[in-house]
Amino acid sequence: MRQINGGVTAAKGFKAASTAAGIKYKDRKDMAMIYSEVPAKAAGTFTTNVVKAAPVKWDKDIVTNSPYAQAVVVNAGVANACTGEEGLGYCKETAQKAAECLSIPVNSVLVASTGVIGRQLPMDRIAAGVAVMAPNLDSSEESGTAAATAIMTTDTVKKEVAVQFEAGGKTITIGGMCKGSGMIHPDMCTMLSFVTTDAAISKELLTEALKEDIKDTYNMISVDGDTSTNDTVLLLANGMAGNKEITEKNEDYQAFCKALNFINETLAKKMAGDGEGCTALFEVKIIGAETKEQAVTLSKSVITSSLTKAAIFGHDANWGRILCAMGYSGAMFDPEKVDLYFESAAGKLKIIENGVALDYSEEEATKILSEPEVTATADIKMGEASATAWGCDLTFDYVKINADYRS
Amino acid sequence: MRQINGGVTAAKGFKAASTAAGIKYKDRKDMAMIYSEVPAKAAGTFTTNVVKAAPVKWDKDIVTNSPYAQAVVVNAGVANACTGEEGLGYCKETAQKAAECLSIPVNSVLVASTGVIGRQLPMDRIAAGVAVMAPNLDSSEESGTAAATAIMTTDTVKKEVAVQFEAGGKTITIGGMCKGSGMIHPDMCTMLSFVTTDAAISKELLTEALKEDIKDTYNMISVDGDTSTNDTVLLLANGMAGNKEITEKNEDYQAFCKALNFINETLAKKMAGDGEGCTALFEVKIIGAETKEQAVTLSKSVITSSLTKAAIFGHDANWGRILCAMGYSGAMFDPEKVDLYFESAAGKLKIIENGVALDYSEEEATKILSEPEVTATADIKMGEASATAWGCDLTFDYVKINADYRS
Repeated sequence: MRQINGGVTAAKGFKAASTAAGIKYKDRKDMAMIYSEVPAKAAGTFTTNVVKAAPVKWDKDIVTNSPYAQAVVVNAGVANACTGEEGLGYCKETAQKAAECLSIPVNSVLVASTGVIGRQLPMDRIAAGVAVMAPNLDSSEESGTAAATAIMTTDTVKKEVAVQFEAGGKTITIGGMCKGSGMIHPDMCTMLSFVTTDAAISKELLTEALKEDIKDTYNMISVDGDTSTNDTVLLLANGMAGNKEITEKNEDYQAFCKALNFINETLAKKMAGDGEGCTALFEVKIIGAETKEQAVTLSKSVITSSLTKAAIFGHDANWGRILCAMGYSGAMFDPEKVDLYFESAAGKLKIIENGVALDYSEEEATKILSEPEVTATADIKMGEASATAWGCDLTFDYVKINADYRS
Repeated sequence: MRQINGGVTAAKGFKAASTAAGIKYKDRKDMAMIYSEVPAKAAGTFTTNVVKAAPVKWDKDIVTNSPYAQAVVVNAGVANACTGEEGLGYCKETAQKAAECLSIPVNSVLVASTGVIGRQLPMDRIAAGVAVMAPNLDSSEESGTAAATAIMTTDTVKKEVAVQFEAGGKTITIGGMCKGSGMIHPDMCTMLSFVTTDAAISKELLTEALKEDIKDTYNMISVDGDTSTNDTVLLLANGMAGNKEITEKNEDYQAFCKALNFINETLAKKMAGDGEGCTALFEVKIIGAETKEQAVTLSKSVITSSLTKAAIFGHDANWGRILCAMGYSGAMFDPEKVDLYFESAAGKLKIIENGVALDYSEEEATKILSEPEVTATADIKMGEASATAWGCDLTFDYVKINADYRS
């Protein structure tokens, strides 16, 4: 497997376009479209929030009931959440407009929105945007990058990645783009991720591969603990790599899963590392756990602890907050057996051993914690299971962004 | 029931003292002692964190196994958490020193600590502080207030309250003090609350009354979602009011519970309203719930949402964040039936009806949200149950306090 340039247009047969539809932002693109030359199998995972945005309801239906998907229409600025029947109607209208412009069935069009909750989409502008984008679809790297930029909200950088690997004598490509500067952006909700591949793979295995992989990737990041109403991951596979279709869990499937994991983990970390207002990506590894579930619970409790996040912002080796967050996580362990390490490009330091602080250098710890990517590893010495979660620090800018975002 | 001046020294036979022991802070008092002239029945509730501070272990044992308690020794500055066997030894040494100075059994002395995690207590200073305080105990209102001030950490105001009510022809007094500017203070952990009463009541009912009441009071507040290693509520009843001992759930018991609830709710709200860096007390009421449990889950999810807390700081009627936080709480409800109101001293405003925004005035909403005490009420129209939770806004100062506290 090797990383290559590009994103959603890297895999064979995928094109993208984007435009400034004037939905909310001025002087920037705010709509994107992804298109596959041939019908693609689609898998999707969506928010577990009881309050589900209209596009989530639309896409769930398409992914479950349509044999194929061929296009995705995305807008930034308005989330189309808490918008009732009217909002769901706009999903259908958007899909109809795209179906008409692209001469494909309406039930092969997926839609996604991110932005303010509770406001209706300006349907005339959405429709006009679709009409502008359809004839401008192309497969260049630039058009993929422009699409990744168009879907940003409070994101400060565009997020895309692509890899290639060999299976069944053919080269298969997977590429993706996402946006998200928090599991939810406030008003400005959402994590959206779009992954495209030219692999030939059965819909069952495509769905299973995605469902399994999100547990270790998107579901292991958090910026603020708030789960969006719009969270969506879509995976499209159009088969144009020409490999023998993957229909069982053989070597090819394992290679596909490995590449998919690289794409998803990379995109997920990009979101955590671009969390609203953040200055550092904060990685937490729990090792020596009895079960995977226990390791997941512990690692997620640490990355969502406001106090720990504030300490990371302050470059403060405040291990008591980490142990405390593990303690209230709900998972059992023996605090008096825990070893804890801090690590970054500046070095690695053991901070506590068997639950008690070592005589480490605070100066060295601060140096390690001043890097843009910081890892805390806790060994709870109960077994062989482990988990990794990604978050970010809590900063003045997070408060600033979210105290006056809506205005 | 009537509110009176005072705190832990308000009830008959209770005395307090405080001193500057030089544990961590300079030029201020940092130790306090509460003493009952006669042995008192004791009830206590403690942190559910797996990582429990040494004083929590010590007090749990005393409250469970000793027939009486007669003194409480409290220090601020060092939490005595994550300190192993050595830390537990210091609890015993502190109790021994107090027992000696006060001529009472060692197993009638409770201890409590708040401050930095992972540091050992300076035992010589603690012992010296106990020796200074013991001869200076007195029952004046001033000594109670001085004790409430001595136990503060990042708190900005001292927190005490007292009430009187009649039962069995006698006047009974309950008074209390607490500290806590978050469910946990970082490094600086803890919520500590001490309530004293001269009521005569059986240990069983005293314990049950406390256990039931904390569900609606201390357990319904959150500043940052982090549950401390040291959280402790102690309730001492010395019987000096001379009422017929309360041994069954009669009218007197109900009157006692009502007064205890007033004390605990008042102290709990004082902590939430003095949350680290906060500018407003944020009250969330869920009404029309099917069950109490559902209402509790929903209200706590809203007060712990970072995004909602930041919006309150910005005086922004960002109702989408509240609905979103209810949505990911784990409790089921129909988002399309929810009515939401904002209320404060500046007025009351209905913001959404049946899940959709009304055409309310943003200006009026901002005015309501600019008060120091703000309430959001959500009616989910499923039944008759309700719950109220208290939190505070998320501010620049919260980040500042917690990013560089330890240094």
